[in-house]
Amino acid sequence: MYRTHTCGELRIEHINQSVTLSGWVQKIRNLGGMTFIDLRDRYGITQLVFNEETHKALCEQTEELGREFVIQVKGQVAERSNKNSKIATGDIEILVEELTILNSSELPPFTIEDDTDGGDELRMKYRYLDLRRNPVRENLVLRHKIGFEVRNYLNGENFIETETPVLIKSTPEGARDFIVPSRMNEGQFYALPQSPQVFKQLLMVSGFDRYFQIVKCFRDEDLRADRQPEFTQIDCEMSFVEQEDILNTFEGMTKHLFKTIKNVDIDYTFPRLSYADAMKYYGSDKPDTRFEMKFVDLTEDVKDSEFKLFNEAEYVGGICADACASYTRKQLDKLTDFVKKPQIGAGGLIYIKFNADGSVKSSVDKFFSVEQLKEIGAKFNAKDGDLVLILAGALNKTLNALCELRLEMGNQMGLRDKNKFSPLWVVDFPLLEWDEDSERFYAMHHPFTSPKAEDMDMLDSNPGDVRANAYDLVINGVEIGGGSVRIFNDELQQKMFKLLGFTEEEAENQFGFLMNAFKYGAPPHGGVAFGFDRLVSLFAGLDSIRDVIAFPKNNSGRDVMIDSPSPVAKEQLDELKIALTVKE
Amino acid sequence: MYRTHTCGELRIEHINQSVTLSGWVQKIRNLGGMTFIDLRDRYGITQLVFNEETHKALCEQTEELGREFVIQVKGQVAERSNKNSKIATGDIEILVEELTILNSSELPPFTIEDDTDGGDELRMKYRYLDLRRNPVRENLVLRHKIGFEVRNYLNGENFIETETPVLIKSTPEGARDFIVPSRMNEGQFYALPQSPQVFKQLLMVSGFDRYFQIVKCFRDEDLRADRQPEFTQIDCEMSFVEQEDILNTFEGMTKHLFKTIKNVDIDYTFPRLSYADAMKYYGSDKPDTRFEMKFVDLTEDVKDSEFKLFNEAEYVGGICADACASYTRKQLDKLTDFVKKPQIGAGGLIYIKFNADGSVKSSVDKFFSVEQLKEIGAKFNAKDGDLVLILAGALNKTLNALCELRLEMGNQMGLRDKNKFSPLWVVDFPLLEWDEDSERFYAMHHPFTSPKAEDMDMLDSNPGDVRANAYDLVINGVEIGGGSVRIFNDELQQKMFKLLGFTEEEAENQFGFLMNAFKYGAPPHGGVAFGFDRLVSLFAGLDSIRDVIAFPKNNSGRDVMIDSPSPVAKEQLDELKIALTVKE
Repeated sequence: MYRTHTCGELRIEHINQSVTLSGWVQKIRNLGGMTFIDLRDRYGITQLVFNEETHKALCEQTEELGREFVIQVKGQVAERSNKNSKIATGDIEILVEELTILNSSELPPFTIEDDTDGGDELRMKYRYLDLRRNPVRENLVLRHKIGFEVRNYLNGENFIETETPVLIKSTPEGARDFIVPSRMNEGQFYALPQSPQVFKQLLMVSGFDRYFQIVKCFRDEDLRADRQPEFTQIDCEMSFVEQEDILNTFEGMTKHLFKTIKNVDIDYTFPRLSYADAMKYYGSDKPDTRFEMKFVDLTEDVKDSEFKLFNEAEYVGGICADACASYTRKQLDKLTDFVKKPQIGAGGLIYIKFNADGSVKSSVDKFFSVEQLKEIGAKFNAKDGDLVLILAGALNKTLNALCELRLEMGNQMGLRDKNKFSPLWVVDFPLLEWDEDSERFYAMHHPFTSPKAEDMDMLDSNPGDVRANAYDLVINGVEIGGGSVRIFNDELQQKMFKLLGFTEEEAENQFGFLMNAFKYGAPPHGGVAFGFDRLVSLFAGLDSIRDVIAFPKNNSGRDVMIDSPSPVAKEQLDELKIALTVKE
Repeated sequence: MYRTHTCGELRIEHINQSVTLSGWVQKIRNLGGMTFIDLRDRYGITQLVFNEETHKALCEQTEELGREFVIQVKGQVAERSNKNSKIATGDIEILVEELTILNSSELPPFTIEDDTDGGDELRMKYRYLDLRRNPVRENLVLRHKIGFEVRNYLNGENFIETETPVLIKSTPEGARDFIVPSRMNEGQFYALPQSPQVFKQLLMVSGFDRYFQIVKCFRDEDLRADRQPEFTQIDCEMSFVEQEDILNTFEGMTKHLFKTIKNVDIDYTFPRLSYADAMKYYGSDKPDTRFEMKFVDLTEDVKDSEFKLFNEAEYVGGICADACASYTRKQLDKLTDFVKKPQIGAGGLIYIKFNADGSVKSSVDKFFSVEQLKEIGAKFNAKDGDLVLILAGALNKTLNALCELRLEMGNQMGLRDKNKFSPLWVVDFPLLEWDEDSERFYAMHHPFTSPKAEDMDMLDSNPGDVRANAYDLVINGVEIGGGSVRIFNDELQQKMFKLLGFTEEEAENQFGFLMNAFKYGAPPHGGVAFGFDRLVSLFAGLDSIRDVIAFPKNNSGRDVMIDSPSPVAKEQLDELKIALTVKE
């Protein structure tokens, strides 16, 4: 037996017991004729003591040891004179009587500490060592716990976890597929799923009633910090439900996770905010509602002002930053620079300071009287001491810039606390999105999303204005999940494909089996998919999903640890009846 | 709201309640001025009643309905006069007051009944309809439950479920990989994992201590009934353990599954049978131990007989079938035909009948006296009424044929009850297998398996005889899982690669990152992987894994429902810098 206890287990009540521990050497110190070793495993750290006087040979043996050696020790649990309240085992130490070196270690390329000296690149290459660090491993333990509680909840709600195939069929719609050449079917390819969408809908046709799966999905897209070529979804679907049934079920799941993982009780119903209002008040379909600071639309109010920029702007709007009238010139200049950054692209920033002493100071004093400024302030419910910030310009661009400004102010004012959670549902998304380049509509959610019954008559006359039974779960400005009530009627689905510019042949070719399935009694159904990586990173308080993935890929889609992708032998390609058109 | 209750929920205590149900029309009958509909959903069947006298219009509406229409009804729960004890809702019926047709259905291509009239091919094409049938859906509900209980058990034992990558690196060792061309890394390929073996070992190096994952794996091999190109493993690994720790942990998991899923208590420790004994007594490394009928080796006993076949045979052995002396000539001829089938390949079958009346009758009466036959019988502990069956020939071939004969006799004697479960561990597998064709050793389990300490000195002198710390869990003759204690020492691992004929460069190229990881303090570790599909099919009492997979592929690796694999657009291939070397 390699151990009787883990390194995180022993307490004061174990004193005088003979124990065997195994683990990694975290630290070695020599102090007054004693050698102290911190022995580490996943469960904690236990202090080992080697007494030079009574165990000379043993102490000499420790001289061979270095950091990250794997050792086994036998000894007695003793009370520490010098207790360490920072660790759970801090009341005890082991008086070592026997030491076995299980494995040696070269000096690691970076320190295995909570704060390491290793750079990103190096840590990715030696990911197996980076994963030894507590904060990284804890992210993955958290991931495990969240997955476990998701399953507990959904199992309790009668959902059946059902695996859908990974080797499926390529569809040109949506993101780019990864494809897999088939050896047994020459010249043909499987595709890896971007989501199990079609299969979960088929399971509803099959009468599974409630399906879920925590499942890997794949998109061959250019990568950003928050994107990986393979990512994980909590994929769910329900039958005989309307939108509110779905929202309530997954609101329940979210609350269950907050309760079991974070011990946070959320005792209110998540707000439902329409897409239109989300854009109007936050300039985003994933608003961070940890703080208010809603947009106020001034377009009509300032139409007739003397300030040309306002008169001519498609949109004028602003936010009110509580108690920020004291912002200095320098701070305001920095904010101006912020909104003028190319990726935000505002032309400039207008401010109105409602000073604590009742005076008003603004960058547009020339054009507005104090009374006019106060009238504007009243629109924001601005109090003395508040700062109003205003942007003007083309509608969408300005809404977006104002959104960024609002988030930046939220940061500066400390309103985006990672330990505060503000969930909401954004609902009533538009059904379609017009693409200027290809001059066609795309499905905003996906081609299976149902239009709202009350907007159905606009489907022919004004499809761009049709709202969908589609919704996103947003928490702290992050889109955690999204879904829709699906079309379950064959004819309506055909019509959607037509709106999306599919020829009948294309629709038949790509989704024929789904259309066919719908002919045999499809039930009303809908569902949702959560980004599992994002959910975990939200719970972990991280900005990127990379550190909640055990073995992530870099921005070129490479796993630098295993050095993949890599060239394959020509024989392999020959067997698959494919050839490279470039040199390796 | 589409329903207040499911179709499996209403009982006598719901009488007089107003309810709304939704589901599929299973059956329509007209009887004495009434229309009866069996309404079906995943949860059960509820009888609907339409009264022609009181609800004429409603009754007329039912005339539009056909099998598999999706309907919603509102009505009152009433006690049935004619109760049906076969279904849980058989005490009640719904007096329908309102009917809504949610969706129509064309006539399904086969009947949606427990016993269907649809052939295999048709049911695969319309898999979404086949999944509506209770027995098929129940297999998948069982799969969900088993997965859920696996997670419950392993979570309770401190295992962390960790996702490992699906886009990994191709390794020529083992089965053929599926590969995935990388667009971002021209001319390079990912491979889909045959198992997460290397990653789980890396997680042990990372100090994860206990890892598991229920995970899809992929092998591009020619398919048989029990093989699918994508299959699911319960993949597990533990640190600081010896073989017995691993066996006990997963024996515990297996017992937990039997208890929670089958309500079967297994109160004994699973037998540990050495590979050598498994071959000796059952001619197989996955013996069906639901019944004894062990082989008796007669080679030495009959060496000097007058029967040339026995004298010259490398192996002579047999089994004793209790109370089968009454087998007729015809039955014995059929058994002889059975063992002579090409895939079994025995030359013939020798029998000795120990008749109930004490007389002895055998097919080798010419060569053996009654006393000699009785002596042979004694080796089997044959009683009056028993039948001894003997095969002779080359060792391995004869052991295999005798194994098949034993299983066949088990079938004929009704000893292979699907509701009886006989688990055991087969242990001490050989480390290496010699391959005549390539004249090299292959790892019997995989290249990371550790040799037994006591056999270590044979590694150079006699590698073929070295036993491994490798084990299989076998239940009812099915290999449910297998694993090994791993090599955790860099040098020994290098030596293994050498034994397996890898050049240093090949080893470095394929497993360099693992070898490198082992330099930084790898703990002793080992693990196991269970075939999830096989486990579920065992619990479901099925012979093939196909019906425990929601959307299986056929023997050509095709999904005939979605018609995949399929050709892809030339533009897709161009982007990936590959071209077909055959016409589509």
